[in-house]
Amino acid sequence: MSREKTAVAVLGATGIVGQRFIQLLDNHPWFEAEALVSSHRSAGKEYGEAAHWLLESDMPDRAAGMILLGPDDPLPCTWVFSALPGREAGRMEKDLAAKGHIVCSNASALRMDPLVPLVIPEINAGHLGLLAVQRRLREWDGAIVTAANCTTTVMTLALCPLHRAFGLKTVHAVSMQGLSGAGYPGVPSLDIVGNVLPQIRGEEEKLCEEPQKLLGELAGEAVREAPFAMSAQCHRVPVREGHLVAVNASFEQRPSLDAVMTALEEFCPKETEGLPSAPGRPVRVMRDPARPQPLLDAGAGRGMAVAVGRIRPSATGDVQFVVTGHNTLRGAAGGTLLTGELLLSRKEDFLVSGSLSAKPIQRFAAR
Amino acid sequence: MSREKTAVAVLGATGIVGQRFIQLLDNHPWFEAEALVSSHRSAGKEYGEAAHWLLESDMPDRAAGMILLGPDDPLPCTWVFSALPGREAGRMEKDLAAKGHIVCSNASALRMDPLVPLVIPEINAGHLGLLAVQRRLREWDGAIVTAANCTTTVMTLALCPLHRAFGLKTVHAVSMQGLSGAGYPGVPSLDIVGNVLPQIRGEEEKLCEEPQKLLGELAGEAVREAPFAMSAQCHRVPVREGHLVAVNASFEQRPSLDAVMTALEEFCPKETEGLPSAPGRPVRVMRDPARPQPLLDAGAGRGMAVAVGRIRPSATGDVQFVVTGHNTLRGAAGGTLLTGELLLSRKEDFLVSGSLSAKPIQRFAAR
Amino acid sequence: MSREKTAVAVLGATGIVGQRFIQLLDNHPWFEAEALVSSHRSAGKEYGEAAHWLLESDMPDRAAGMILLGPDDPLPCTWVFSALPGREAGRMEKDLAAKGHIVCSNASALRMDPLVPLVIPEINAGHLGLLAVQRRLREWDGAIVTAANCTTTVMTLALCPLHRAFGLKTVHAVSMQGLSGAGYPGVPSLDIVGNVLPQIRGEEEKLCEEPQKLLGELAGEAVREAPFAMSAQCHRVPVREGHLVAVNASFEQRPSLDAVMTALEEFCPKETEGLPSAPGRPVRVMRDPARPQPLLDAGAGRGMAVAVGRIRPSATGDVQFVVTGHNTLRGAAGGTLLTGELLLSRKEDFLVSGSLSAKPIQRFAAR
Amino acid sequence: MSREKTAVAVLGATGIVGQRFIQLLDNHPWFEAEALVSSHRSAGKEYGEAAHWLLESDMPDRAAGMILLGPDDPLPCTWVFSALPGREAGRMEKDLAAKGHIVCSNASALRMDPLVPLVIPEINAGHLGLLAVQRRLREWDGAIVTAANCTTTVMTLALCPLHRAFGLKTVHAVSMQGLSGAGYPGVPSLDIVGNVLPQIRGEEEKLCEEPQKLLGELAGEAVREAPFAMSAQCHRVPVREGHLVAVNASFEQRPSLDAVMTALEEFCPKETEGLPSAPGRPVRVMRDPARPQPLLDAGAGRGMAVAVGRIRPSATGDVQFVVTGHNTLRGAAGGTLLTGELLLSRKEDFLVSGSLSAKPIQRFAAR
Repeated sequence: MSREKTAVAVLGATGIVGQRFIQLLDNHPWFEAEALVSSHRSAGKEYGEAAHWLLESDMPDRAAGMILLGPDDPLPCTWVFSALPGREAGRMEKDLAAKGHIVCSNASALRMDPLVPLVIPEINAGHLGLLAVQRRLREWDGAIVTAANCTTTVMTLALCPLHRAFGLKTVHAVSMQGLSGAGYPGVPSLDIVGNVLPQIRGEEEKLCEEPQKLLGELAGEAVREAPFAMSAQCHRVPVREGHLVAVNASFEQRPSLDAVMTALEEFCPKETEGLPSAPGRPVRVMRDPARPQPLLDAGAGRGMAVAVGRIRPSATGDVQFVVTGHNTLRGAAGGTLLTGELLLSRKEDFLVSGSLSAKPIQRFAAR
Repeated sequence: MSREKTAVAVLGATGIVGQRFIQLLDNHPWFEAEALVSSHRSAGKEYGEAAHWLLESDMPDRAAGMILLGPDDPLPCTWVFSALPGREAGRMEKDLAAKGHIVCSNASALRMDPLVPLVIPEINAGHLGLLAVQRRLREWDGAIVTAANCTTTVMTLALCPLHRAFGLKTVHAVSMQGLSGAGYPGVPSLDIVGNVLPQIRGEEEKLCEEPQKLLGELAGEAVREAPFAMSAQCHRVPVREGHLVAVNASFEQRPSLDAVMTALEEFCPKETEGLPSAPGRPVRVMRDPARPQPLLDAGAGRGMAVAVGRIRPSATGDVQFVVTGHNTLRGAAGGTLLTGELLLSRKEDFLVSGSLSAKPIQRFAAR
Repeated sequence: MSREKTAVAVLGATGIVGQRFIQLLDNHPWFEAEALVSSHRSAGKEYGEAAHWLLESDMPDRAAGMILLGPDDPLPCTWVFSALPGREAGRMEKDLAAKGHIVCSNASALRMDPLVPLVIPEINAGHLGLLAVQRRLREWDGAIVTAANCTTTVMTLALCPLHRAFGLKTVHAVSMQGLSGAGYPGVPSLDIVGNVLPQIRGEEEKLCEEPQKLLGELAGEAVREAPFAMSAQCHRVPVREGHLVAVNASFEQRPSLDAVMTALEEFCPKETEGLPSAPGRPVRVMRDPARPQPLLDAGAGRGMAVAVGRIRPSATGDVQFVVTGHNTLRGAAGGTLLTGELLLSRKEDFLVSGSLSAKPIQRFAAR
Repeated sequence: MSREKTAVAVLGATGIVGQRFIQLLDNHPWFEAEALVSSHRSAGKEYGEAAHWLLESDMPDRAAGMILLGPDDPLPCTWVFSALPGREAGRMEKDLAAKGHIVCSNASALRMDPLVPLVIPEINAGHLGLLAVQRRLREWDGAIVTAANCTTTVMTLALCPLHRAFGLKTVHAVSMQGLSGAGYPGVPSLDIVGNVLPQIRGEEEKLCEEPQKLLGELAGEAVREAPFAMSAQCHRVPVREGHLVAVNASFEQRPSLDAVMTALEEFCPKETEGLPSAPGRPVRVMRDPARPQPLLDAGAGRGMAVAVGRIRPSATGDVQFVVTGHNTLRGAAGGTLLTGELLLSRKEDFLVSGSLSAKPIQRFAAR
């Protein structure tokens, strides 16, 4: 392993999101996968044998030969990317943080924990300031930062510049979500081929609480949520990768369509400049009235940008539009990795603060 | 041809909606297809040779052997069901009405004409009263009645009992529409397999104006539209038959969820009692949180009922729900046929009024 | 329960094939479902609650309210239809036969047992004569008859008249099989949406041994298999219902294409005349060069006929063609039910033979 | 335009295969698109406006701004890649060759012309020797070389090493072909979603004559076709990109399965070494019994390799296997481009021969 890179462990390594982590970490300039962790059932096996690889590119050779650790094995490195399923994740991540690990989590368990920052780097990098509070109050040597739900991420990237410019009042979102979001084996083919399913368990709840936290402000030792109303209806559609969200929004100040487009197109956050996974402009505005489409547009910016189109006035709100993005890249492993890059690049600001002077700073400086 | 049945001509007979008309007219107790009309290109051919049959049941033998008429050929019967594409339909249908034909049209061209009733029998049978005005002012021997757009029909059947009980204030609708709605050849497979298309030309416009006319009241010689605000976002999904609509609605009086369910379940319109194509209860409430689904539920009531589920409170309105229905049965040929049945059964009320005494009443009594 | 009908138990009642049995038994003129049997996990629950219903028609009300029996519960009736999965089926079916039950099985476990008839009624009704041998040698009060694999059934119905007329020498079959054949949850959607899978476990083996037994002759106390060579390559495709098989065959006497078509079209077996589930002509020849297609043609003859097309000469054999049929109707529950109808209608011939005079004949005469 | 690259014109530039040419030529090290040619209808428009772009990557900026030439416009460069539809192609390509252009064609029109080499570089690079005969007898200043049909290409790459080692006697092929092979708009979605189509016009004919020419030998002034028997059954399946072919083959000498695998794995043709589009090993053997699958494996070797699996003995031949490959890359634009690269790299051998000394050699040396 090269000396300059930061070693990471991947939890939930055999699932779809875990596979995306491994794909993205292959030849990553800053991070290197040093440990892959799975359930007890697969622990001890080679990754190449245990994982049912589902991605369009080949499994990286290096990962294929790694021996999977079990959930109770000690991790050989400080940094951890978690692709654990929602239910199991919370306790294990807290244990790791208590032991001094820096956990960047894609899991839903702790996203709404008032002491855990929920971060989309282009939107609320400053929420990482909550980590100092988290570590002090929880008495953790390590720390936990979470990435948002896949649908939340895709939608909120488009909402952010509009909220900043015009102030969100209400948002109604109807999603059409791809199959990979359900993991593997996930949705049985007999349920979805030629069909739409109007239920994705827990999804609407997440979509109705995460955006307000993401667009809120860190005030003192807590995030003050943005006070807009959210409602959501989520659907599964027979699309492999990519979520589409139809949004109907109203604002404090009703904007013109031109103003909406300008706000979206000028959204060029400085917080992610220089981060390896940042997509350049994270929001792409499409003027073709037949776009965006998940098949054609979820891959924009190597799957890290979202595409917005069909921006029009709404008789029941102010503006309606459609946004699509890649659910397992931008909406999961890629988004979490970007958050990890942000945290690594600003370690001095967020992890090595004065109030933590008793903690071994070197721990986080080392791999 | 049996003496007791009313002869009808089908315009646009080779398209998907035309095929559904032919399927439904086969063994229909009141109507019998006497003429099938197509474009100039197919006129003179046998129907079985000219039509690319797309339905799950076999083409009726009788239709297969009929020779197609061209658009300029005189029609041998008074009653006409029109499955013409939107653009061509208006002029041809007006010509036929002027010549004394009773046209029941599925086309969009004349739906918003103030003198043409737009009718869903369970909702606004009384709008047929507009026919007397229409015939007097237009000086037509015949008449035109139109059925609503497929998505409008599915959604408005669910909205109707709620509007009556609680008074609609705003409705935002997001549709996921099946492939048959685009006709044949329709959507290229490369565009839609594994994809969602966020554009269906003209659909959102129809969905934003037809429901208010349908739920309006015939006052004097005009329909006074229901004054609620409508917005819509329409999508094509890789489903064969069936449209799904996610609805977010607010009302004059905010109803409880129980009141919503009761209103939907008790919707048993008397206007369609005894009509051959009426589905019994036209709105079916599903309590399984994974329903309704177009694949499983669009066929409810032989494709003439709609299924509603996921009725829940909405933070940006009062109530949200999902409704699905069959777009080429309830939403097209079946709905138009039901309107024809209604008009035939109430001929005395709506076609043979005193103000028309100069007109040959026998014309409409005969086949 | 009506007095005239024969009561049956359905094993594996909650699976897809079990659901088809229940659908077909609803209003069946000869049989009536008296007991539904499932695994231990579902036993004791109402069927309507335990079964994830996957069929296009509604679950029959009567079945919905029945309480599921467990695999060890005694059955209240002599006749049993088995939709058990392959592995579990053999032992349980043998136990039932030993106890006096007449088991008509869709399972694969005992199909190739030399003492168990493998029957497609139109092809080899006479093989039921093996039951007398079976009961004598196994000392069973009851009996077991099996239906063939779904793909075997579809293909062999087309091969049968050709074998009789021209004598099969070699058959190479390449199948494209629908999703319902894998049961539920079956094939994960991520594996099959937009894809073809070249492996169906155990399928090629079945397809390479069952046809020879089906087309063989009962000689004395054993079936002498038809001596042609079979090879097969089986694939899963994203089709809901219906298997398509591309066949390349050579014969003892090379037939003309006309002779092939004539043999197929004249295949009108007398053995199934009067049986409620018989489809009339079981093989339909299609002359449209774009047919047969599983979506349009698997439902022929209420799903009990197969459709053959693209009959052409082959440079590597004599004749090639394509055949499609419904895998869970003709190829599973419907085929097994037809075999049950055959056996019931010819009970006197096959179950009440002289050699069994010590057995209580009444047992089988009663329900 | 860079001085070192060879300028090319692309015929049929707006179709799917034309789009692939443009995608592959973007940043190609040897060739550069200098002219894009379309039908009269699009000529004069910008490519970005005229083409309905269907590929997963963005349209290259340079191509987007190019003005389309019409079919009668003179071409500004010697080299031409043709993605013309089959019917139109022959005459236009011959005209161009007569005028001195070097035409590398993906069209089917001239593939079986005895004077036109049909080339897959890894298989029969030496057939380019036919160009000297072609140019002499046809009196063309230019030349035409053709690439094979998509399905032929995928299958024959796997057959080639087996033919060389064991001598093919018979081949029966059953294909399952992706949607992009039908072009755009191509297959209507209503025909193929949830279905399989057993007819692809002209495909079986091509698959039954091209392999013998490809595997034949250039003897004197003609190709002597390999004398094996071919039969084929072709199907369209709802897969976006990638053809799968199930092959049943017999040989002069029956090989062991090990020998088959070895022959396939050791197939490392020297003829394509150093060509930019060559995929390294063109045939990949997969031992996972669930592979190859078009979705996962058609992209092997950047879409230029084919993947073979399920190699097993066959009771009706010697060996059966399944092969998949990318139909618009390896099977169309990529394969034709590779042939162009081969011809450019061996210009001295095949285009500037002694017998052509009267022709201006410089013509081909220049761009």
